Amino acid sequence: MTYCVALRLDAGIVMLSDTRTNAGIDNVSRYGKMFTWEVPGERAICLMCAGNLSITQGVVTAIDTALRRRGAAADDRDPDAGTETILSADSMYRVAEIVGAHMATMQERYRDQLSAQGQAADASIIVAGQRIGGEHRAFMVYSPGNFIEATPDTPFLQIGEHKYGKPILDRVITPETPIARALKAVYVSMDSTLRSNLSVGMPLDLAVIRCGDCRFALRRRIEEGDAEFTDISERWSNALRDAFGSIPDIAGV
Amino acid sequence: MTYCVALRLDAGIVMLSDTRTNAGIDNVSRYGKMFTWEVPGERAICLMCAGNLSITQGVVTAIDTALRRRGAAADDRDPDAGTETILSADSMYRVAEIVGAHMATMQERYRDQLSAQGQAADASIIVAGQRIGGEHRAFMVYSPGNFIEATPDTPFLQIGEHKYGKPILDRVITPETPIARALKAVYVSMDSTLRSNLSVGMPLDLAVIRCGDCRFALRRRIEEGDAEFTDISERWSNALRDAFGSIPDIAGV
Repeated sequence: MTYCVALRLDAGIVMLSDTRTNAGIDNVSRYGKMFTWEVPGERAICLMCAGNLSITQGVVTAIDTALRRRGAAADDRDPDAGTETILSADSMYRVAEIVGAHMATMQERYRDQLSAQGQAADASIIVAGQRIGGEHRAFMVYSPGNFIEATPDTPFLQIGEHKYGKPILDRVITPETPIARALKAVYVSMDSTLRSNLSVGMPLDLAVIRCGDCRFALRRRIEEGDAEFTDISERWSNALRDAFGSIPDIAGV
Repeated sequence: MTYCVALRLDAGIVMLSDTRTNAGIDNVSRYGKMFTWEVPGERAICLMCAGNLSITQGVVTAIDTALRRRGAAADDRDPDAGTETILSADSMYRVAEIVGAHMATMQERYRDQLSAQGQAADASIIVAGQRIGGEHRAFMVYSPGNFIEATPDTPFLQIGEHKYGKPILDRVITPETPIARALKAVYVSMDSTLRSNLSVGMPLDLAVIRCGDCRFALRRRIEEGDAEFTDISERWSNALRDAFGSIPDIAGV
């Protein structure tokens, strides 16, 4: 399975994904689910994918193909020079539309055949980022290609196995949450998910984009045994146990 | 939806269920999902139900019909006097088999028709209790009528919306957990579920059977605003916030 979470805060965007994929419990692999594109100072975009891996890999390939075609254009008269890409789109909203269109194309191509063989084509993709002159935004693209945006009322998006990691986000994340605290929250959210669902697994991919800064402030892989993540995980485990212990037992039965 | 949890501890059995049922989000009702039968000093049995309400109500009705038929038998020569019931069965394992057989009958009767109309017949039932001369045991009966038993490795069973309330049980429940602490744990587990899933709702039903004591030590309805439950809920909320606050933020981004 998968767990990916994106926070859209006043201070910027925080994204965290796991890397475990499975086709049945006896066929477990590692695939990165986070993809980033950056023109430092101009645009930083991050995708995270859940669901049918062939569908989401197809979407990412289509995005890269468009970028390569445009990049290879000899000059402005080359028809490929006008190819719209996620790095040329005039808004993050338009970027989400492009990702949605690729999603719809992949679904159309394979959905009936997958369904006929009893397999699910469902997939979802979180798209977040910032372009120069625009706000930082985060969207969730569904299988049909439609999408929603994170808003101040619900400043986070989750895909995959979202339930175990949601309660802590519900309790502590607001648009005003600073990045340093938000990082701690997504670590705890991921840690709860890792503990409860074996099909979500290390290593993790982390990305941070600060508000107004069109580049990745942080983009790192968190390997098994990572000191920072392990420290938070152990502290949270102890703090939870202490919290539970601090509440009086129910006497009188 | 539904959330029901049963703990099978060395000290006894603790069961907690919500009472919310919905057929679509615009059709929400209150139905008790916990059913108890007791012959004090001889036998105490508790059922909790999740899934298709018509199926589980049918199972409970079949259990009660058998009890009534046997109870109404004029004397030992009356054929109904030999009707096997959950109060006459010679083991808790046999009680689970009886519940499973009723489940299979209901599934056979309605499943195809429900499925033809795009509806789910799936249901699950937790059966727990103790009879004199036997151990206290807890079983989970699935739609086909088969069942599993709670063991020391996993001393709790959950049905319905189980994910939000599972992490705390994973962390604190062992067979050695005393009842007073176990009650606190199921309150916290239910509280997490109530907060995250609107289709799980108050009031709650609670039952406790102490090891070796074939009667209900506690059987009460917890209404909205219940002092004990509200107190635990608020203390847990504060303790969680403090726990999160006690962990250092991730600096340096």
